[in-house]
Amino acid sequence: MKILKKINDVRSEIKMAKAEGKIIGFVPTMGYLHQGHISLIRKAKEECEYVVVSIFVNPTQFGPKEDFNRYPRNLERDIKILKDEKVNLLFAPETEEMYKEGFKSWVYVEELSEILEGKFRPGHFKGVCTVVLKLFNIVQPDKAYFGWKDAQQLIIIKKMVEDLNIPVEIIGCPTIRESDGLACSSRNVYLGEKEREKALCLYKALKKIEELIKKEKIYDCKVLIKEGEKIIKEEGVELQYLEIVKIDNLKKLEKIEKDAIILGAIKIGDVRLIDNLIISEF
Amino acid sequence: MKILKKINDVRSEIKMAKAEGKIIGFVPTMGYLHQGHISLIRKAKEECEYVVVSIFVNPTQFGPKEDFNRYPRNLERDIKILKDEKVNLLFAPETEEMYKEGFKSWVYVEELSEILEGKFRPGHFKGVCTVVLKLFNIVQPDKAYFGWKDAQQLIIIKKMVEDLNIPVEIIGCPTIRESDGLACSSRNVYLGEKEREKALCLYKALKKIEELIKKEKIYDCKVLIKEGEKIIKEEGVELQYLEIVKIDNLKKLEKIEKDAIILGAIKIGDVRLIDNLIISEF
Repeated sequence: MKILKKINDVRSEIKMAKAEGKIIGFVPTMGYLHQGHISLIRKAKEECEYVVVSIFVNPTQFGPKEDFNRYPRNLERDIKILKDEKVNLLFAPETEEMYKEGFKSWVYVEELSEILEGKFRPGHFKGVCTVVLKLFNIVQPDKAYFGWKDAQQLIIIKKMVEDLNIPVEIIGCPTIRESDGLACSSRNVYLGEKEREKALCLYKALKKIEELIKKEKIYDCKVLIKEGEKIIKEEGVELQYLEIVKIDNLKKLEKIEKDAIILGAIKIGDVRLIDNLIISEF
Repeated sequence: MKILKKINDVRSEIKMAKAEGKIIGFVPTMGYLHQGHISLIRKAKEECEYVVVSIFVNPTQFGPKEDFNRYPRNLERDIKILKDEKVNLLFAPETEEMYKEGFKSWVYVEELSEILEGKFRPGHFKGVCTVVLKLFNIVQPDKAYFGWKDAQQLIIIKKMVEDLNIPVEIIGCPTIRESDGLACSSRNVYLGEKEREKALCLYKALKKIEELIKKEKIYDCKVLIKEGEKIIKEEGVELQYLEIVKIDNLKKLEKIEKDAIILGAIKIGDVRLIDNLIISEF
């Protein structure tokens, strides 16, 4: 596996791989890799002849009071994992390589960026879109892999790619969960033992809503949300939002229809966690 | 010359040209071609094996009170010119092909977009950057050609390309002028005979300032601007701005230094005209 820190070096490697006619797959990450990332990499390896992973904790997607500085990092461990997965190229730039002094250019998907996560993390998706577009321009992949765990991010990136005619196919991959159902996240490492248990309440709420839809045939979103909220409140956990929206445009639903998604965010102490569940059919 | 209206058709053509190892040159325009455009196309033909021109009057770079509807158009005449210049591909999409319903994604270069032209045309450069990025993603050129006539636009696009790591080389080409010095512009067609004469005052002001710098060794920008303004006011023409700035970051200069640019905009009746002069050495 090649490990590169400089944009121009990545360009040279990719140029060679493309000259050999290889399909380029790309998995952008912030490192501290878990089973969710590994599932993206395996999917990319299945579908592409040359797989690039990036590890870059992107400062522009963190708010001033967020966890940029303490975000978990362990490049050595990550490199071992990527080698085991037979990744072809790791791009792990320094902040200065990605954001030169006087950086001024931003990509923004309006409306979709301002709701749900966007309300609690203003500027977050502007940072995400900008860094993802930069990485796409550097790696020039044929396919890029994102997890459904960050559903709003995936939907916004798909919209950006469509609107701006970016020549890449975006592949969404299912959320990977730990054995008790907690969605894999680099931020899970922040949780103490008791918090770890409490954190499960969000997934429980999502599953409860799914059950009410599928078994009890309850389709009124207000009623469903209320039932979900109850579970989270009983655990004494702070709920930031719990909403049922249409999966393609994130519009709030009053009544369940197909291709809906239930999205939630909780806060346990300093730790913010998100999760979601897709209702394709019911 | 191929004439295509659909993005996917352009992608197929370009793919073939790239497979043959051809260097792709690109000249984005809003049509109603003049000698300025032709000079860009000739430069592209000199340097590239496959030259693409786009003609698209981009609605998102016009303000609600601006001249989008009456902007001059003559596709038939443009096609004749492009055929004579042996352009390989003309991309002339309809608005609906470029902006699908529910379009939401924008590219923005902060600070540089808010000064000079940006003060008089809020949102203009956001529209320009967005459409240029879209066209780059569709055509995927190796080199793209822009005129120095629209100096601020060129500087902003260069900044966008650098910041977002867009894999294209931006080539700035000198302003082409009519025999009396008026900068070529599609908008010159708006001018009546008397207005046409008055319009020259901006170029005269720029040349006067250049002369004061180079012959009279006057380097105080306030003094220089005052002399330029006098010429425009004497002609009874509305001056929107006249500024001397550093060419790379558009910062206002107090004293002339090398790589300065004098930028101005005037309004004659409904017609807005811009021009500039670069002071590389003095």
